[in-house]
Amino acid sequence: MTTPLMAQTPPHNPIPDIPSYSPGLEGVIAGESALCLVDEGDRGLRYRGYAVTELAEQSSFEEVAFLLLHGKLPTQQELEEFRAHLQQTRTYPDLVDTLLRAMPPTAHPMDILRSAVSLLGILDPEANDHAHLSNMRKAVRLLGQVPLITGRAYQLMHGKQGGQPDSSMSTAETLLVLLTDRKPDDAVFTMMARVLDVSLILYAEHELNASTFAARVAASTLTDLYGAITAAIATLKGPLHGGANEAVARMFIEIGSQDRAEEWVHNALKRKQRIMGFGHRVLKKGDIRSAIIKRHAEQLSNICGDTRWFNIATTVDRIMQEEKGLHPNLDFYTAVVYLLMGIPQDWYTPVFVCSRLSGWCAHVIEQQDHNRLIRPRALYTGPPPQSYVPIDQRH
Amino acid sequence: MTTPLMAQTPPHNPIPDIPSYSPGLEGVIAGESALCLVDEGDRGLRYRGYAVTELAEQSSFEEVAFLLLHGKLPTQQELEEFRAHLQQTRTYPDLVDTLLRAMPPTAHPMDILRSAVSLLGILDPEANDHAHLSNMRKAVRLLGQVPLITGRAYQLMHGKQGGQPDSSMSTAETLLVLLTDRKPDDAVFTMMARVLDVSLILYAEHELNASTFAARVAASTLTDLYGAITAAIATLKGPLHGGANEAVARMFIEIGSQDRAEEWVHNALKRKQRIMGFGHRVLKKGDIRSAIIKRHAEQLSNICGDTRWFNIATTVDRIMQEEKGLHPNLDFYTAVVYLLMGIPQDWYTPVFVCSRLSGWCAHVIEQQDHNRLIRPRALYTGPPPQSYVPIDQRH
Repeated sequence: MTTPLMAQTPPHNPIPDIPSYSPGLEGVIAGESALCLVDEGDRGLRYRGYAVTELAEQSSFEEVAFLLLHGKLPTQQELEEFRAHLQQTRTYPDLVDTLLRAMPPTAHPMDILRSAVSLLGILDPEANDHAHLSNMRKAVRLLGQVPLITGRAYQLMHGKQGGQPDSSMSTAETLLVLLTDRKPDDAVFTMMARVLDVSLILYAEHELNASTFAARVAASTLTDLYGAITAAIATLKGPLHGGANEAVARMFIEIGSQDRAEEWVHNALKRKQRIMGFGHRVLKKGDIRSAIIKRHAEQLSNICGDTRWFNIATTVDRIMQEEKGLHPNLDFYTAVVYLLMGIPQDWYTPVFVCSRLSGWCAHVIEQQDHNRLIRPRALYTGPPPQSYVPIDQRH
Repeated sequence: MTTPLMAQTPPHNPIPDIPSYSPGLEGVIAGESALCLVDEGDRGLRYRGYAVTELAEQSSFEEVAFLLLHGKLPTQQELEEFRAHLQQTRTYPDLVDTLLRAMPPTAHPMDILRSAVSLLGILDPEANDHAHLSNMRKAVRLLGQVPLITGRAYQLMHGKQGGQPDSSMSTAETLLVLLTDRKPDDAVFTMMARVLDVSLILYAEHELNASTFAARVAASTLTDLYGAITAAIATLKGPLHGGANEAVARMFIEIGSQDRAEEWVHNALKRKQRIMGFGHRVLKKGDIRSAIIKRHAEQLSNICGDTRWFNIATTVDRIMQEEKGLHPNLDFYTAVVYLLMGIPQDWYTPVFVCSRLSGWCAHVIEQQDHNRLIRPRALYTGPPPQSYVPIDQRH
């Protein structure tokens, strides 16, 4: 067994036969999953055995969500039924509406979603049933509800009366109507909805990333699915996880134009500033998803007649490869397409939630179908045994 | 290096040099911590180097919470200031009050706490600052707010107008006044408050249990402390984690009297029914905490003149050791003391939250002070690569 793992045993550690330890669990296997193959080699990234390249080209987000949950591609009838279920559940209870209307203008969009999903769990009579079919029903309801809650939360916070989604709309169309000023009869709407759909496919699942892992740790106590998803939303919020595409967009806005990009990056590198959208804990040789969304970013830029963001992005990308040998990750060119669509930057991570929700739910169901409590150990680094000192003798 | 870990490499796993894998991360080291030494040997369970036996005898929950957060026992002045901070923060915002008043009678107490803490995060202007001192301030506020929210939620749901805590009360006294019909001038109140205080000390911290680990996974993305605690509450709710003492109490109530205990346990074992309150993922040779709370359970039973629960418990305990060689864990005799106090069973896990919150916050702060993203890998068990099939060719 050759592992890259460090073995360090401080003097006070009580664990006998201490196994090797890898900070951040890097490279450590923490569970089994049939959902996703993360491979930088020939097999590429695959959901349930299907290449993400093929899914992004030929499939829809709803089809991919079905695939992740059920382990098979749907037949025409199954897909129609699945879509109908999602459409029927594009609604939410009054208590969630009360919450959304009570939000202060400073509320963080991810905190709103975290709280809203927690409330949904209070109100669902089958919340605490972790049987397979009950979890499946809850997953479908969440996939219907969360995009609507996301869009309404944005509209209420910003006093937007605008777009109202038609109940026949896809997840991508619903988000586009609610989060942007685009109208469904707008000439480029269909094109944008397709690119957003691709983006949702690409973000849907990525093995034991931190938010999915948090959901599985929670689920392993047999807590309810809403609780596990609440934990995942709380985790995705972190700037080292879900916040990256938003940070990339803010960088592009700060750079402003292509002719300033080269100098901006060189200066940032000189200052040892971290350039967002590059590198990945697992993917060291590049991210196949980045190439897919880059192609869509270029096409959409041309259709919109606005190549500014794409040109800034390719310049930053080129310099980072030249100077650092780093490849862009999925978040990098995603920022270009979201900027073109006019999705407000604060709401990029909630859009990520609407997609990754499919993977999270599939992981929670997989965990609870073959459950084993996730309870690791810590390497003790604290003081050696010491005796209690009465309070009047302390200093 | 001798490890008890299993090494299995299914054919499709893409990870080179695959490390050994232990289901549920059993025995796997997932991080470093100076907070807690879990040892079944001579060194016993220790918080920051201090034996839990000494802390339970000589200390208070507030002192232990200070110790966990600051890494040292407080001086008299530090403890007084810490207590004053907790007392000042025994209040909560109107939005949380609106939530508590809107709860349906079916709401799960843990879901209420999960949602309330999530809302607190929306409303705290320094929620998203993960600097050490900011996290410390938030931890103290939560330690003040959550016991009050717990008690008020109970009173509102059950139409209780009863006990109102005095702002000078300890965490244990506050919970006892809010969750039971005990009055502070009641003869046994002081004794009960002391036993509840011991219980809070014993539940305060236990290394990388599932809820603490979920909090650290969330915190490792640099998400906010409220989000990490929300994830922990969601995780503690699970019946394999925080729900055990409640299940023990329900078992004692079902048994009803000592003379029925022996037959009840034998029948349950014949039916292969799981007897709650025995065994532990880490502690195989018994739990020092169980001996401590057992002693208090016996004393309190005598003082109350009600030895029914204690007698049932010792009978079940004896038979389980005889028949299964299993030792009771902390949850087992805790059920006896909570039954004597009259804490409603549904609210045992929220009381656990009020205690473990101290350990969770200390772990989140420790994680973010020396952060590394927690992102493990999965062992792929899904189908081999397969080609996308157009929808009209599926069956």
